[in-house]
Parts: sequence; structure tokens; C-alpha cells
Amino acid sequence: MKIAIINGPNLNLLGNRETNIYGTQSFETYFETLQAIFKDDELIYFQDNVEGNLVTAIQQFGFNADAIVLNPAAYTHTSVAIGDAVAAVTATVVEVHISNIFARESFRQISHVSAKCAGVISGLGLKGYELAIHYIKSQAVPA
Amino acid sequence: MKIAIINGPNLNLLGNRETNIYGTQSFETYFETLQAIFKDDELIYFQDNVEGNLVTAIQQFGFNADAIVLNPAAYTHTSVAIGDAVAAVTATVVEVHISNIFARESFRQISHVSAKCAGVISGLGLKGYELAIHYIKSQAVPA
Amino acid sequence: MKIAIINGPNLNLLGNRETNIYGTQSFETYFETLQAIFKDDELIYFQDNVEGNLVTAIQQFGFNADAIVLNPAAYTHTSVAIGDAVAAVTATVVEVHISNIFARESFRQISHVSAKCAGVISGLGLKGYELAIHYIKSQAVPA
Amino acid sequence: MKIAIINGPNLNLLGNRETNIYGTQSFETYFETLQAIFKDDELIYFQDNVEGNLVTAIQQFGFNADAIVLNPAAYTHTSVAIGDAVAAVTATVVEVHISNIFARESFRQISHVSAKCAGVISGLGLKGYELAIHYIKSQAVPA
Amino acid sequence: MKIAIINGPNLNLLGNRETNIYGTQSFETYFETLQAIFKDDELIYFQDNVEGNLVTAIQQFGFNADAIVLNPAAYTHTSVAIGDAVAAVTATVVEVHISNIFARESFRQISHVSAKCAGVISGLGLKGYELAIHYIKSQAVPA
Amino acid sequence: MKIAIINGPNLNLLGNRETNIYGTQSFETYFETLQAIFKDDELIYFQDNVEGNLVTAIQQFGFNADAIVLNPAAYTHTSVAIGDAVAAVTATVVEVHISNIFARESFRQISHVSAKCAGVISGLGLKGYELAIHYIKSQAVPA
Amino acid sequence: MKIAIINGPNLNLLGNRETNIYGTQSFETYFETLQAIFKDDELIYFQDNVEGNLVTAIQQFGFNADAIVLNPAAYTHTSVAIGDAVAAVTATVVEVHISNIFARESFRQISHVSAKCAGVISGLGLKGYELAIHYIKSQAVPA
Amino acid sequence: MKIAIINGPNLNLLGNRETNIYGTQSFETYFETLQAIFKDDELIYFQDNVEGNLVTAIQQFGFNADAIVLNPAAYTHTSVAIGDAVAAVTATVVEVHISNIFARESFRQISHVSAKCAGVISGLGLKGYELAIHYIKSQAVPA
Amino acid sequence: MKIAIINGPNLNLLGNRETNIYGTQSFETYFETLQAIFKDDELIYFQDNVEGNLVTAIQQFGFNADAIVLNPAAYTHTSVAIGDAVAAVTATVVEVHISNIFARESFRQISHVSAKCAGVISGLGLKGYELAIHYIKSQAVPA
Amino acid sequence: MKIAIINGPNLNLLGNRETNIYGTQSFETYFETLQAIFKDDELIYFQDNVEGNLVTAIQQFGFNADAIVLNPAAYTHTSVAIGDAVAAVTATVVEVHISNIFARESFRQISHVSAKCAGVISGLGLKGYELAIHYIKSQAVPA
Amino acid sequence: MKIAIINGPNLNLLGNRETNIYGTQSFETYFETLQAIFKDDELIYFQDNVEGNLVTAIQQFGFNADAIVLNPAAYTHTSVAIGDAVAAVTATVVEVHISNIFARESFRQISHVSAKCAGVISGLGLKGYELAIHYIKSQAVPA
Amino acid sequence: MKIAIINGPNLNLLGNRETNIYGTQSFETYFETLQAIFKDDELIYFQDNVEGNLVTAIQQFGFNADAIVLNPAAYTHTSVAIGDAVAAVTATVVEVHISNIFARESFRQISHVSAKCAGVISGLGLKGYELAIHYIKSQAVPA
Repeated sequence: MKIAIINGPNLNLLGNRETNIYGTQSFETYFETLQAIFKDDELIYFQDNVEGNLVTAIQQFGFNADAIVLNPAAYTHTSVAIGDAVAAVTATVVEVHISNIFARESFRQISHVSAKCAGVISGLGLKGYELAIHYIKSQAVPA
Repeated sequence: MKIAIINGPNLNLLGNRETNIYGTQSFETYFETLQAIFKDDELIYFQDNVEGNLVTAIQQFGFNADAIVLNPAAYTHTSVAIGDAVAAVTATVVEVHISNIFARESFRQISHVSAKCAGVISGLGLKGYELAIHYIKSQAVPA
Repeated sequence: MKIAIINGPNLNLLGNRETNIYGTQSFETYFETLQAIFKDDELIYFQDNVEGNLVTAIQQFGFNADAIVLNPAAYTHTSVAIGDAVAAVTATVVEVHISNIFARESFRQISHVSAKCAGVISGLGLKGYELAIHYIKSQAVPA
Repeated sequence: MKIAIINGPNLNLLGNRETNIYGTQSFETYFETLQAIFKDDELIYFQDNVEGNLVTAIQQFGFNADAIVLNPAAYTHTSVAIGDAVAAVTATVVEVHISNIFARESFRQISHVSAKCAGVISGLGLKGYELAIHYIKSQAVPA
Repeated sequence: MKIAIINGPNLNLLGNRETNIYGTQSFETYFETLQAIFKDDELIYFQDNVEGNLVTAIQQFGFNADAIVLNPAAYTHTSVAIGDAVAAVTATVVEVHISNIFARESFRQISHVSAKCAGVISGLGLKGYELAIHYIKSQAVPA
Repeated sequence: MKIAIINGPNLNLLGNRETNIYGTQSFETYFETLQAIFKDDELIYFQDNVEGNLVTAIQQFGFNADAIVLNPAAYTHTSVAIGDAVAAVTATVVEVHISNIFARESFRQISHVSAKCAGVISGLGLKGYELAIHYIKSQAVPA
Repeated sequence: MKIAIINGPNLNLLGNRETNIYGTQSFETYFETLQAIFKDDELIYFQDNVEGNLVTAIQQFGFNADAIVLNPAAYTHTSVAIGDAVAAVTATVVEVHISNIFARESFRQISHVSAKCAGVISGLGLKGYELAIHYIKSQAVPA
Repeated sequence: MKIAIINGPNLNLLGNRETNIYGTQSFETYFETLQAIFKDDELIYFQDNVEGNLVTAIQQFGFNADAIVLNPAAYTHTSVAIGDAVAAVTATVVEVHISNIFARESFRQISHVSAKCAGVISGLGLKGYELAIHYIKSQAVPA
Repeated sequence: MKIAIINGPNLNLLGNRETNIYGTQSFETYFETLQAIFKDDELIYFQDNVEGNLVTAIQQFGFNADAIVLNPAAYTHTSVAIGDAVAAVTATVVEVHISNIFARESFRQISHVSAKCAGVISGLGLKGYELAIHYIKSQAVPA
Repeated sequence: MKIAIINGPNLNLLGNRETNIYGTQSFETYFETLQAIFKDDELIYFQDNVEGNLVTAIQQFGFNADAIVLNPAAYTHTSVAIGDAVAAVTATVVEVHISNIFARESFRQISHVSAKCAGVISGLGLKGYELAIHYIKSQAVPA
Repeated sequence: MKIAIINGPNLNLLGNRETNIYGTQSFETYFETLQAIFKDDELIYFQDNVEGNLVTAIQQFGFNADAIVLNPAAYTHTSVAIGDAVAAVTATVVEVHISNIFARESFRQISHVSAKCAGVISGLGLKGYELAIHYIKSQAVPA
Repeated sequence: MKIAIINGPNLNLLGNRETNIYGTQSFETYFETLQAIFKDDELIYFQDNVEGNLVTAIQQFGFNADAIVLNPAAYTHTSVAIGDAVAAVTATVVEVHISNIFARESFRQISHVSAKCAGVISGLGLKGYELAIHYIKSQAVPA
């Protein structure tokens, strides 16, 4: 399977920033772990701080990959455009958050993206990305 | 007259995406129809998924074109920056939505842009762009 | 085509009242202009200050005309009954507002009518009525 | 001076209805008292249960009388159309309520009319109408 | 007993309008059924699209009939005047809605009328009118 | 027909508690009256103060009875679980309230149950249960 | 009669401050006019910028004067203590505002005082004080 | 490891109820699949419709199991007591929802439980339970 | 006197759970202290995690004890049923919270129970129970 | 111990004002009772109608007394300044209300003071002051 | 220049109170520093805990000083009267907060004062007063 | 010191756009003034209309400059991503607004950025940037 991982703003700082919340591992390092786990699948990693570039990436991978694991980070709570992009594409999209957003500020309880995704994993750390891919692959099994 | 048409995020998918709402015609094809109708006017088409690039485009055309037909799409409901840009420029700006946003989700009833435009056309399909230009041209007739 | 124009409360004062917002032309005078533009169509004009009489007019024209151009004026923001009437009839209904209601008081941002109409034109002055009829006629063209 | 008193819905029941709130005197009887007090002025009394008819009355007296004493009753809290009519006319309009609406249900704390009137008298019983006329006449004194 | 049935706006379309919600029977036809069921009682039927005319009807039947079965339709959600009229009269008033308004749009969850009625029947179709009359007659039985 | 009547918390006190609102008759006594009226039907009575036991009862009768007359009492305003149970079962469910909840505290205007029922009867006293059964039986007549 | 006029914060600036809203006459000058009009009555004038001193004044005059004309100014919108004081005393209290507070900022639409007063006069300028006294004296006439 | 799965109200109907949302498999059947997958772990299954019994179960397993996979179903949105229980115990608690609650009614967007759990998996079907256990077991690996 | 102490959900964990908020003493141990203090009175202790069982307990002790000291814990903020039970019984009910709920999460500021009790003691630790009983006994002294 | 009792606005009227809520005893009389009960302690009584004077008193006694029993009366619901003062001082502060504020108007449910106090006693009449002092003294016992 | 510094409630405790937020320096000591910095200007310092006294001070310095540096402290969030006073005077008023109020409780995000001031400095510690004076002096430079 | 000034959308128009609010000087011109004032410091100027590019700039300067003076303009009110970036970096960040945003539209009262900055200066014109740098430099002085 071809699966894109799309990370939103400030996730390029992962491992440096607010390590009490997000841990000390960079996503690039973790991505190698993921590739090792799913070595028969094509994994692609894309990160951008610009909302509109995330929209474009969802459009692109949303039509030419099998699935997207999407962590819109701060844009989860403010972006209608990303929600619209998710609704527009044919790939399965699973939303992942590293921290448990339900235990954080009240403005992080609002999402215009989650309703358009297949599902949401929140608070399970970087492990959440791996679980999302497990789910995606389980769906691809012929019924 | 020189008139810019500025389209916001996901409108590059027009004709493919959610065709039950937006129809099957791409905007590029429709733009040729528009140019044929207004063949004595200079029409310019700009589309971008990035909010800030739309701000920049409004700034540019807002001072060197006579009018802008603006469909901010999802940014209609979340962008103060686009509303500020519209308020800052000298061109007449008419807001157009292809679908009737008043018949959709409640978060699409909120706009920080509409109050800064001359007026709004919503729900009249691609025809709305043509009507907006008719309005702009009628305003340009000497009183 | 047979098209009814239905105007709501206080629009009988047009040309006298708050001319900085609504201009100095009476609707009766403008209606003659409209009839001249669409001289092959049957245009009918109805105005009333009573919400329930507007409901009745929508019911009547809504079944025996091809379309309605509806400016519910103040009732836009308070009337569920007019919205129900629009939803009940078979004619295409396009809502028109002379001023840009999105740039006015916050209570004018609320509508129980717009969601039931095909679309809305707001802020394009009396020209909005003409544009609404152009839209209606364009929809009637065989595909 | 020519002064119109316009009463809204259910005030035709005055003297019968909820007499603990509104007292036992009919408005017709009280109107004779008012005429006796202001015998040099032309007082006109109009009552209607229909919102739109009140709009029409405000339009008519609002241009051919010097002032209006307006008790919109229940429509105070739900009518944008009456507020628009008051804003449209040239006569001074003073709003009067027999009971103290601020001591009643919370939905009676909302008004789309009061902001458009010169002022409001509430809770001073039928005496409020007399005081409103005293105010109107005091304003007519040449400065 | 003398019992008035008062129906609000758009109920004159019953049987034609939104038949998936309201069914295909006109109220006039159903009224004959009702009269057959309660042939020893005087049933009166009144329908009007005008809020103020409903107020007047409630005032009239509210003092000279034993009870009113009231379906204020769309005015249920916007009319303080009808609620005031119900509170002013001596007849028992039972509110009836054909559809289950609690399963519809959120603005239909608001009522200024229900609190002033003896009770409410909602969602039981035209049968609701018959049940309301059964209730009214059961209350008239000497205790 | 087999019809279950399910009463929620504190209704076991009926006849003792707040008799100015609920009257002095116990439900057990009234139930005998109901059985006498509908002597050809199998009526079952269940009351519990525990929300989850009401959920279980709705599940049980909702699959093995023809209909349920449900008075969730205080849980009407706080229980999503009961609403989910009603939505899950195949029996027709009619909601009944003895008092007119629309005339009581504002927190009693909220319901997560009513939207899932066929309809609601409120404020018609114990008679409401009888009327609900009449409705249920009328629906069972072959179309 | 003995009548106290109690003015709240910033009214000591009357005639200087925001004269487009409040006019150019000081209250002290106007008070002499009032005394001339009601020369058979004992009028007392008290002004203070301190909320608690207004509470104390209401307590004192509220038991040893016949009535209070109260303009709580800015405290109208923030003071529960003044409302409690008005509710505690035996004198009739009429609330007066010089400007029409309903036409000003939204936070001036909130009052914890008005519900506790006999009534409210707003927007009739300094004349409002005179009208309040006329009302008070009319109430004192033996019935 | 010893891991308890605790399911809330109406999940005993799984496989029968609203199968378009929840699928056709009963949880008991699925539980056997789970046990097969995690055959080296002790899995325990508990389901109850009563909020307080879920509180008690969380207390019990929360001190004598290593972790809890909790689907509070409808109580997610109304129960403070379950949230308090989760906060009180020492076991890791992961919340799971079969459907994507973010795509459902607005009252299902509110949770008093999620903030107290380690994380949340929503919308990934029964697979969500398996993923939750994978997460739990990954956390148990010595660092 | 016969006085029942009724404790709600999770209070069975007292002494173990969140000891920084609730302290380290179990309620059973404290209850012995209370019995020693009030050795001439009959004290009864009841705790349950199930809302409906608390309703039942309030009903039972509310008619056969002199007073109830009630700590509804988490149900304070979500239960209408417990508030209804308190309103239904004849015993004096005093609400007690060990922690100061006003200093905790905003959802703990909402109560449907407090308004129905004689009074509330919050934040005074286990001592609050003793003070509540002192109050109850002081009320029983003949005036 | 040295304990200050600080009472807010209108409590100087105690015994005269709204005796159905507050009883007929003045606080001065009750204070003598308190002194008799706690004759080994130094009790100080301070009452003021001015919010800022209460702030000053809390500052003074808050550093030179052991504890404060504070009844902020109406300022409970509007004063951030008093809450700030309580947070600033070292003395234990217990809030007392004579009436049960939770059973009164909705604006009395809001407090900026309670969260800063050790605890709150509401609705237990003047007895609440005595209980607060019992609590304060119990805290002073060496552990 | 003559510049008044006006500090609101509890700022007299500066240096003692909540030193983690406000630091350990008293304002009196800091004021000497300020005077040393601006030794060619007349600086005046006024502090009061009483809202109305702050109103009076703003009135006085607002007409006889060139500018006011105003820290309304807790009254920022509750006082309309102080906002009205600022709007009434001719001096430039700059609002200063020592702590960053935007990072504190949500009730500190509300202000009726800030909109009436020239500007606001928040969170820059005591340095904010100095910066405010620099601004004031820069404005006084002839253009 | 190395200090970056980061300006958000539409500030590139400064000097042309809405000059009644923002004045007629371009930021580039003003920046030269700033460099002259702080000639011993390294000042860097960055402006962008794209939210994500501002995030990136904050990340970059936030780790390699001593401080940032940040004017997020319209994104102040809509961007969680910028607030997250500010929280992630080590540099001191001071927020500056040229106009007094507290005196403008209500949607400009909301900020997700201010709470994460050291402090905020609003309404002091371009001077605000200079004052922010003075603050930053004062903090760098060894204590």
C-alpha cells in the first residue's frame, strides 16, 4: 500500500519543543522506525507549516495514495479548508494527535477536520501513527 | 475593464470534487465561457490554496484592476486577513459562492469577508461569477 | 416565463426611506425598467407589510408562476413561516437584498429563509433583482 | 400638535386581560381622559393585532403626524419590521409599555424597536402615555 | 361543547406540501372526520397565515368557546403575541403539532406558546387533534 | 396488542409528591383504570429510579412488545443513553409527561429522548398515557 | 411630598462631558428648574461616584422619603448591590436615564436595577426627571 | 498483562442495533477474536447499562488490572462520575468509540471522560479495541 | 434525632483517591467519629455509585428520617433526578462537599441539586458533615 | 483566636429588609450571641456598603487576624477586586451567605470570590456564621 | 508635563501579595525610580481600592493633567463607570497592567476600560509604567 | 542584542491602507528610524502574508535571536499555529499592535497568541515597536 503521513505546523520541531507534552524524538527518526515496521508498504512523509500547502498535499496524496495519516496540529482547530480537502479526496484519512487534545485548552476541543476523517487517534504518542496504519491495512483486507 | 477572478482553496478541484454540490465543470473550462461573454474586458483568473497568497493577490489586483470577483471558499468562514485585505484595496470586490452556503453547515454561516465586500451572490452556481461581472460593469456606467 | 417579484415590509417606502442605504428610486419606477429589460416575460409585482400576506403570496405564485424573486426585508431575520412557504412551493425562489445585509446589524445576519431559497443576492442594489431574473432564465434553458 | 397613539397586539383586551398586570381600565376609556388633558392637540388612536398593519400605521402617521406614542406590545421583542418602520419615518416616536417589562420574562428584555425610538417609558401604567405626550410637546417648544 | 380548531401558516397547503412530513390528507377532509367522531360537539375550524389574525381568533374563541386546539405552525417558534393571547383568554388551549417538532431543526425547539397552553401533543399526525379533543372533553366531566 | 408503560425516577412517589403539580392519584391505581379501558390489550407496567435499568427495559420491551409509552421523568433532560435505547429498538415509542414541562424550569426544555420517539404528549395529566395508547392502537390499523 | 433624586457616577460632569449625548446643562442648574416646577414638594439632590454610597443613600431616602428618582448611570449595568437596595426600601423608585440606553453599547442593555424599580424612563433627556416626579405625584393621589 | 474491557449502555445490542453505524458483529463474538490475538494476556469483558455500575467496575479493575479499555458509549457525554472514577484509579485507561463520534450529533462532541484517559480512539470500528491493547502493551515495554 | 448521611459516587474510595484533594481518611472511620460526637442521635450511613439508588435512598430516608446530609459528588452537576427526589421529600436536606467545588473545573459550578436543599457547605473537609448536623439539630430546637 | 466578620452591602438592614428571606434579627444582636458562644476568642465585626472598603478591610484583617468570615452579599456576584483581596491575604477566609443563593436568581450563581476562599456555607441562616467559626477553630487545633 | 499615575484595588499590596505574579517591589519604591527617570516632569501617584474614588480621580486629573497612566486592576474587568470616566476627560489615558492579563483567568479577558484608552500595555512588569510615559511624552512632541 | 521584528498580513500596505487607523508611514521607513535608535543592536525585519511562513519565521528567529517583536495582525485572532510557535521557542516574544484592537470589532478581542507572549502593547502606534525593544533590552540587564 501507498500511505502518506502529513504533519501540520510546528511538528517539524518535534523532539525540541515542549518535550513534556510531545517527547524528545524527532519525527524524522520515528519515521525510520515506521518504515522498518511497514517495510512492504510505501510510506511518504510530508510536513508543512502552511495551511494551504497541507490542503494541496491532501489533494495530491488523496487521489494517488491509498490512505493518509493526517496530523493537522494547530490547524485542526481553525481550518475549514483542510476539512474540505479531506472530504474531497478518495483516500481513507485517519487523524492522529500525539498528545491527548481533550486534556488540553478548550479551543483544542473544536475541530472542523475530525468529522471528515474515518476516525481519530489522540493521546497515544507517536505510537498513534503506527496504529493508524495498522487500521488502514486492516481495512484493505478483502472482506 | 480589467477584472480579476480570485478563487480560494479546493476550487482547483472543481468538476471532480463533491459534484453533487459543485457540478462537473472545471473552472478553467468555465473561465473560457466567461471570456467569450465579456470579450471586450480583460479577465484574469487566479486560484490558490494558501490564505496568505489570496491576501497578496487581493492586494495586487485590488490596486491595479477595476474590480475583483472573489470566492474565498473555506477561508470565507475563518479568515480575518482576507477581510482586511478587501477593506484595504480600492477595487470593487463582489463575493461569489457556487453553492448556497446558507443551506449548509452552521460554521459556513459565519463570514469575516462579506461585510467588507460590495455584495454577495451565493447559490447561483457558476452563473454567479457572470452576474457579478454584469453588476461590476453596470456600476462603471457614468451616472 | 412568468416571474413574480415579492417585496416585504417597508419596501413600499423605497426612494424616501434611509436613502443613504437604499437609494432614491421607488420600486414602482424600477419595475418599469425591469419590464422593459424582460419584455418577453410576464413580470408581476407584489408588496405587503404583513408577514402572513407574504406567505400567502408565496403560496399562490409558488404554484402558478415559474419563479419568485423574493426580498423578505425585515422578515428575513424573524420569519420561520416565510421559510416554510418557500420550502413548500415548486417555483424556483431567489432571495434578493438591496443593501449588503452582512455589513449591517448582527441581527440581520440571521435568516430562516435563505436556506430554503435557491440562492441569495445581497448588496448589489436594485440591480440584484435584474440579476436574479437573468439567473432564473438561464436555468430554464434546456440542457 | 397631531399625535398618533399606536397600540400593538392584545391591547384591545385591556381591562379584561391579566388585570393584575395591566389594570381594569380599557384603553378606549383612558383615551377619553387623554383627550381631555390635551384638548388643544389632535390625538388619534390606532390598535391592531397584525404586525404588518402596525408597520403601515407607523409609515402613515410617521409622515403626517408630529409624533407617535408607540406600544408595540409583544412585537417589541420579535419585530425587526416595526423597528425599520420607526427608523424610516420623520415623526418623533416614543415607546411606552404599561407594565415594567424589565421585571418580566427574559424574552421581554430583547427589543429591536427601542433603539430606533427617541426614548422609552416602561412600567408607569397608562400614565406613561400621558408623560410621553408631555415630552413630545416639550420638544416642540422653539429653542 | 364548543371547540375551535385554529391552524397557523401554511397548514392550508396540507396534503400538498412536504407530504413526506405532513402526509397527503387536506385538513378540510380530516375536519369532516373529526366532526363525525365528535358529532355531539360544535367544532369550528379557522386557518390563517397572518400571525395577528390568529391572535384575534384566539381572543374571540378564547372567550366564547369552551376550548381551543391550536396549531400555531411556524409562529410557535417566533410569536410572543400568540403566547400572550393564549395567556389572556379563559378557554382551555391545547397545542398540537402534526410532525414531531423535537426531531426537526433546532429553531423549532423554541416556543413562546407552549408554556401558556394546558399541554402539547407533537408528532402524532392528524390523530393529535382528535386526542386533544378527547382530553378537553375528559376535563369537562364533573369531578 | 402488547404495550409496555415505562416510568422513570420519582414516579413511584406519584400521589404523594408535589401533588400541586402531579395530582394525588398513584400510578398503580391509575394503571388499573388503564387496564379496564384497554381490556383487550396486554398492558405491562415498569418503573425504576435507575437510568440504566430503564435502558434495559426499553431494550427488552422494545423488541418483544408492540409499543412503549415512556415517561423518562428527570432523565428526559439528562440521558443520552435512553435516547440511544429508543433509537435502537423496533417498537413504536411515545413519550408522555404528566405536567407541561414547557411551563417549568428551563433545564426541563432540553431533551435527548424526544427526537427519537414517534411523538410527545405533555401536560395532559395521567390522561396522556391513555391518549398515547389510543394513538398506538390507531397506528396498528392495517393501511 | 419628599422626593430624593439620586444620580450615579460621572453625572457630576453633566454639561461638560460627551455633550453630544448628554447636552450642555449641568444637573445643578436643572435641579433649580425642577424645584421651581415642584415648589410645593421637598426635592433633595444627591450625587456620588461610589456605588456603595449610592446604596447607602437609597437605604436612607428609601425609608424617610416618599419616593426616589434614581439614575444609576454606569452602575445600572454592573451593580447587584443597588438593585438589592432598591428592593429593600419602602419608597417608590423610578429609574431615569438621560440618553436612550437601548440605542447604545450592548453592555448597556443589561440591568440588575430596572426589575426592582416601579418603572424606567430612558432617552427623554433631563425632562425624564420631571416626568418621573409627575408619575410619583400621580400615584400619591388617593384612589 | 491483565486488561479489562468495559463497555457502556446499549453496547449489549451490538450487531442488532443501528447496524449501519455499528456493524453486524456482536461484541461477544469479537471478544473471542481479541482473546485469540492476545492469547498471552488475561482479557476480561464487562458490560453494563447502569452508569454507577460502570463506576464500580472502573474502581475494581482500575486497581487490580494493568489497564482498562473503556467505551462509555452514551455516558461519555453526560457522566462526570465516570470521569472521576478514571481519574481516581491507577490503571492506564484508553477510551474507544466504534463510530466516529466527531461526525455525529453535536451533543456527542462533549466529554467529561476523555480528558481523564490516556488517549482516545474513535471511528476505527471494533478494530479500535485491538489497537488500544497494542498501545497498552507497548507502554508496558521496559524503557 | 434520626439523620441519614448519603454519599454519592467514588466516595467509597475516600482516603485512597486523589488524597491531595480529599485527604487520607476513609468515610467509614470518620463516621465513627461522627457517631461519637452525636451519640444521642441515630446516624445512618449510605453510599452508592448508582444515581437511581441515591434517588431511592433519598425517598426512603426523606420520609422516615428527620434530616439528610447529602453529598451527591459527581451527580451534583448532572442529576435532575436527585434534585427532584430532594424536592419531593419532607426531611430537611443539607448538601455537603468535602472540597471547595467553586475552586475546581467549571462543570462543577453547575448544580441541579443545591437549589432544592436547605443549604450547602462546600470546602470545609469532613468537618462539613459535622457542621451540617449541628445546623440540623439547631433547627429542631423549639422556637 | 482573632476572627473578623466582614459583611457586605445592605446587611446593615438585616432584620428590616426582606424578612421573608433574611429573618427579623439584626446582625448586631446576633453578634452578641456569637460573642457569648466564643467568649474566649476575639471577634470583630465590620460592615460596609462600599466594595473598595471591603477590599481594604480584607487586606487589614487578612494580615493581622487569624481568620475572616466573609459575607460579600451582592458583591459576591460582581467583584473581582474582593476575590483578589482574599487571594492576597494570609488569613483563612470562609464565605457565608444567610440565604441559599443557589435557590435564587441566576445572576447569584456567579461568584468571583468563592474560588479564593477556603469554603462556602450558604442557606443555613445566621447559624452559618457560627459554623464557620467552629470550622476555623477546628483547623487551628494542632494536628 | 504633568502626568498622573492611578492604580486600582490591591495594588497597595504590591511587593507583598502574590509575588510570583507581581514581583517584590512596592509601587512607592518604584515611583521614586520613575521620578528619577522623568525628573523634568511632574508625576503624581494616586491609589485607591474604591471604584468610585478612581472615577473621581480620573475626572480630576483628566482635566488638569496632560495624561493619565491607569492601572484599574480588578476593576478593568467589571467597571463601566471607569470606562465612562476615561471617555469623558480630555487627557490622554494609557492603560497598564503589570502581569500579562491575557495569560490569566478568562474573566480577565473582558474589559470595559481598554476601548476608551489610547492604548494598553500588559505583561511588561513595572517597566510598563515607564514605557507608557515615554509614549505620552512622544505624543506631546509638536508635529 | 539580535532582535527580529515579524509583521503579519497586510502590514506591507502600511502607509497606504486605512490611513485613518494606521497612519501614512510605511514600515520600511519606520524601520530605518528604529535602526537609528537602536544602532548597537542587530534588528531584522520580516513581513509575510502567509500564516505558515510566520510560523516558520518565529521558529527560526525564536531559536537564533534574543527576542521577537511580533505583530500577527489579522492572524492574532484566528491562529492557533502562531500561538503554538511562540510557546515553542526560547526567545522572548512581545506582541505589538499599532491600533488599539480593544476599541475595534468584537472578533479582534479574541487572541490565541497573546497568552503565549511575554506581554502586549496595543494602540500606541509605531511607537509600540520601539517601546517593545526598550522592554526587551531592559530585561537583558543583569539583575
